[in-house]
Amino acid sequence: MDVISVIRTKRDRGELSDEQIDWVIDAYTRGEVADEQMSALAMAILLNGMNRREIARWTAAMIASGERMDFSSLSRPTADKHSTGGVGDKITLPLAPLVAACGAAVPQLSGRGLGHTGGTLDKLESIPGWRALLSNEEMLSVLDGTGAVICAAGDGLAPADKKLYALRDVTGTVEAIPLIASSIMSKKIAEGTGSLVLDVKVGTGAFMKTVEDARELASTMVGLGTDHGVKTVALLTDMSTPLGRTAGNALEVRESVEVLAGGGPSDVVELTLALAHEMLDAAGVDADPAKALADGSAMDVWRRMIAAQGGDPDAELPVAREQHVIKAPSSGVLTRLDAYDIGVAAWRLGAGRARKEDSVQAGAGVELHAKPGDTVTEGQPLLTLHTDTPERFEYALESIEGSYDIGAAGTGFAGSPVVLERIA
Amino acid sequence: MDVISVIRTKRDRGELSDEQIDWVIDAYTRGEVADEQMSALAMAILLNGMNRREIARWTAAMIASGERMDFSSLSRPTADKHSTGGVGDKITLPLAPLVAACGAAVPQLSGRGLGHTGGTLDKLESIPGWRALLSNEEMLSVLDGTGAVICAAGDGLAPADKKLYALRDVTGTVEAIPLIASSIMSKKIAEGTGSLVLDVKVGTGAFMKTVEDARELASTMVGLGTDHGVKTVALLTDMSTPLGRTAGNALEVRESVEVLAGGGPSDVVELTLALAHEMLDAAGVDADPAKALADGSAMDVWRRMIAAQGGDPDAELPVAREQHVIKAPSSGVLTRLDAYDIGVAAWRLGAGRARKEDSVQAGAGVELHAKPGDTVTEGQPLLTLHTDTPERFEYALESIEGSYDIGAAGTGFAGSPVVLERIA
Repeated sequence: MDVISVIRTKRDRGELSDEQIDWVIDAYTRGEVADEQMSALAMAILLNGMNRREIARWTAAMIASGERMDFSSLSRPTADKHSTGGVGDKITLPLAPLVAACGAAVPQLSGRGLGHTGGTLDKLESIPGWRALLSNEEMLSVLDGTGAVICAAGDGLAPADKKLYALRDVTGTVEAIPLIASSIMSKKIAEGTGSLVLDVKVGTGAFMKTVEDARELASTMVGLGTDHGVKTVALLTDMSTPLGRTAGNALEVRESVEVLAGGGPSDVVELTLALAHEMLDAAGVDADPAKALADGSAMDVWRRMIAAQGGDPDAELPVAREQHVIKAPSSGVLTRLDAYDIGVAAWRLGAGRARKEDSVQAGAGVELHAKPGDTVTEGQPLLTLHTDTPERFEYALESIEGSYDIGAAGTGFAGSPVVLERIA
Repeated sequence: MDVISVIRTKRDRGELSDEQIDWVIDAYTRGEVADEQMSALAMAILLNGMNRREIARWTAAMIASGERMDFSSLSRPTADKHSTGGVGDKITLPLAPLVAACGAAVPQLSGRGLGHTGGTLDKLESIPGWRALLSNEEMLSVLDGTGAVICAAGDGLAPADKKLYALRDVTGTVEAIPLIASSIMSKKIAEGTGSLVLDVKVGTGAFMKTVEDARELASTMVGLGTDHGVKTVALLTDMSTPLGRTAGNALEVRESVEVLAGGGPSDVVELTLALAHEMLDAAGVDADPAKALADGSAMDVWRRMIAAQGGDPDAELPVAREQHVIKAPSSGVLTRLDAYDIGVAAWRLGAGRARKEDSVQAGAGVELHAKPGDTVTEGQPLLTLHTDTPERFEYALESIEGSYDIGAAGTGFAGSPVVLERIA
């Protein structure tokens, strides 16, 4: 087996054999296949695709590159959720304790933000004392004790994916459905969850810009999960505008706590409940998540989960040192507020990172005072930008410019539903 | 300018701007763009192509990455030849002294073999004492004194191409017409020849398997040369069967000397004369190369050129320690003898190298006792395999198996002409 023949096979639109896939993933993990060879193969896969058998084998080979976790010792069924990433997507924060409060165990291995989409761990780290890095034993103990845990994936899970993901990030080979699907699913399957609900985002603020692409990604991932014995369901959800009214780390934690307290923006509540229903169905738990939000039991799990990871659920959350308010230039109806532009602005304000080694600002981000469909009055606050480093305002404002449209009063507005489609 | 946006442009079938091309070649040469990024870009170029403007700019950027030579101090016009590489392609050896004997100066910067095609420098190094590595001053001195020089290209010419060629070789991105054309032409233009004849090989033993691909490569290169003020002509020539009756280093030198002595296989003589005519025409020299072969003047230049580079033109050439004869299994007409299979066999016998750092055997190779169209008799020698390391016979024989067909006596045979097409 040699790497050039593997690259040539895919370059020339051939199918990779099981042996070729097993070999190339193993050899890359061991450093025998070089980064420049794997990036050429990744580009060939991006441009020429892989069929379902190839994707399944590729995923299995990445799972086999590391350890697998096992939650069978828990008394409750496990349910996990994965979002493909969007702007203002804080759903994991209220969702994990909510589903735990309903009786499932939620082992939520999460990531950090890169580019314009935020990362769950970055958000939670704005809570004083909270720790993302747990040993496998600590993770199981938090999960067993509170019903939910949100933490960083250990280095032992799918190391081939970890290495390949970092490579794709610097070689323009992120946006390949076979590689996205196998990356997500190898980690989730290795993690050992019994059921999985996928939130596949569609729109300007998501990796998938069209429903067709999102549908292909979703059905690929559902197939991979099912093949590996994980009960998997996907919802296609709207990411043309930010979720909720905040994009940024501490800003999103605050909004999540509002939801757990029974309030919060209606789209965040709607999506949280929709995903909770799917997770509970998939895990075979019969419970009403709306009740667990209303009666405070989800909030209880949240407080215990945060505390179990060293965080103080009652601590003041960081606030950015500087604010800049953008006012509505005219009166009328807000007809568009672009998710990607707002995500880039939040990133530029310091909420995200350009490179893995960068740190993020806990208080930075964008607050939305109106959502598409809302009536706005000239001069009212439309957006508030938050940052500790005011020299970033100008760069962030470049992304805000052109990010919204205000139509004349009475302009008709047909908003997108939160959940577009369900794929099982 | 950032490399990911350049990669994405080509990945998404866009055109690279002049600024993107200049930047990426320069940044890659300086090590700012990493190998894994350039290989992803090379794969995107291979699969999505470049238009003529992009190829021209890419070539110019590679020329600009290093020094340019200047032969304007010579009293004679310069003419150079480049072959895209084939099996048994020893044509440079008789051709360079022949054209010099007719009055042009031939600065022949050559390469080493890699894979199944042989390299001119490897062949000449089988002559005891001969040196491939000359300083620019030594090169000019041999050229000025004898009319011809065949040597390795210095490190100063098109260093971007040198780096990119080594990368393409290990990443499955060699077979891209824009990259092949710009690689060849950047070196030839930087070398400073006044005219250039391209021998573009077509067939199983060549990089270009079809006349259409060869025509596209040839016309791309002719356009690049012409744009840079180099009078450039291309011949498309047959590489479905090996050239001449030998493939291997010393074996091919011996055959070349036969041609210079007025003998040798008819296809080698025919192609040598065809290319000599084109080179002399392009250089504006009116002379009859057939006469220079017949009267011994080409042989005189050969002897002086070899001696000027430290070689002994009268020395015994190395002979491999072991031979294995393959006999005709039946009587009839040899209807096919595959160039690629014979090239691979010669390579496996030790005539070629698998990696750049490998050495080659001077005596190894394949001798053909019949050519397509010849009548053969059962039991007569068909091929002789030569190697110093007889444990290689078995591996070489795998490639010989299936490399030829013998038709019944009287089978019609329409051989391919040596020269298929001329592109100017």
